[in-house]
Amino acid sequence: MFEFFKRQKVRPEVPRLKPRNNSELIPKVSLAELSPDPILYLAQAAYLQLSIFEALSATLSSSPTVEAKEQLSAAAAAALDKHHRLVAELSRKKANPVAAMQPFAAQIDAYSLLIRGANWYESLASIYLCAGILDDFFVLLASGIRSDLGQRAAQIIGGESSREVIVSILRSAIEHHPPLASMLALWGRRLVGDTLLMAHSAISNSANQQKDEKRIEPVFTELISQHSQRMDGLGLTA
Amino acid sequence: MFEFFKRQKVRPEVPRLKPRNNSELIPKVSLAELSPDPILYLAQAAYLQLSIFEALSATLSSSPTVEAKEQLSAAAAAALDKHHRLVAELSRKKANPVAAMQPFAAQIDAYSLLIRGANWYESLASIYLCAGILDDFFVLLASGIRSDLGQRAAQIIGGESSREVIVSILRSAIEHHPPLASMLALWGRRLVGDTLLMAHSAISNSANQQKDEKRIEPVFTELISQHSQRMDGLGLTA
Repeated sequence: MFEFFKRQKVRPEVPRLKPRNNSELIPKVSLAELSPDPILYLAQAAYLQLSIFEALSATLSSSPTVEAKEQLSAAAAAALDKHHRLVAELSRKKANPVAAMQPFAAQIDAYSLLIRGANWYESLASIYLCAGILDDFFVLLASGIRSDLGQRAAQIIGGESSREVIVSILRSAIEHHPPLASMLALWGRRLVGDTLLMAHSAISNSANQQKDEKRIEPVFTELISQHSQRMDGLGLTA
Repeated sequence: MFEFFKRQKVRPEVPRLKPRNNSELIPKVSLAELSPDPILYLAQAAYLQLSIFEALSATLSSSPTVEAKEQLSAAAAAALDKHHRLVAELSRKKANPVAAMQPFAAQIDAYSLLIRGANWYESLASIYLCAGILDDFFVLLASGIRSDLGQRAAQIIGGESSREVIVSILRSAIEHHPPLASMLALWGRRLVGDTLLMAHSAISNSANQQKDEKRIEPVFTELISQHSQRMDGLGLTA
């Protein structure tokens, strides 16, 4: 399988307040030849966005301050909007969105439980890091969908997520309580494994053809590289 | 105080699938002369919508089916949109939205906890009934705000809530398990007391002048009458 845990090359410790925007993601590698089934692709992407929304609204509700609540509300709205726009694409394809999402609910719910985290900070790190990987992944996977749908899906999923606020919340928490950094660094490593397995299943679940592991591997390397940049942005060692 | 618990006159048991839309609410009684402070009014209304959103997203997450999750997602989006539009009105008034909402957070959070309910059905009933009363109340209270703001606030709060789905979920649950009806009828009576106290505090919190209890009483009678219609719609005795 992929070498998730292979030590990443040491990165210079440049503080980076803003993560790279998804729209700037240059697909050095491509999943274009995988040609995922559009309905299966949309159903998984839509349910995952709903799941990201649920995680965001749970952290919103357990926010220690009204300020954090208000900041997270923009991210919750963005995820819910992405979900509804993907559901609208399913309807446009004459699919029943609920019936289409149903087969993926148990697997995605189980994944969400795995990455939920033991406290508010872990939960926020999970959302920022996992949704980051999954958004990148589904944008790359969209390139394999023929017709305009692929481009529209990439625009929806790669659109504004309003999750940068999590970076400032976590950086400030680490500043006030430095031991948090090593806990979150460990947590971040744990998350990447579960999340790449989720992405790998999404390929198996929606591929029209036998997947070629050799073709997929560079994609995962690219996802890990983006993840490491987000870890850097949080001031954590990937 | 108000006679919340005075037995309402017996209503004919006409099944009513759709609740009256807020926009049809004819203010037989008015709070126009109360002239609430616009900032205090908006801050409470905005935080209450956020609180309704939080309750909706919690019931969404604990939904037993993907269908119910998807149905509740529209109501969650509507409440979050109302919140953000009220926050935008606060910004327009040059208020800091977080600072404006802060003083009301503890009281509204305590109220939300009181009405949370012991199970999914009670939680859904709470959202439908309490948000129904509070939306009606804040629409009525808006009539006392001079300038266009009053009308805009009434349009935001009285706009589409997409909560009708709760009526069909609860009616179907009662049909499959008739004892639920008496439990929810009791719960509905409990809710109305807590919610009218919340509304009463909102008047005290935002009134520019000493409130006149005699003027307020008919407003509460009207709110109770609307509440009884929602109870009827659920097939419950108010």
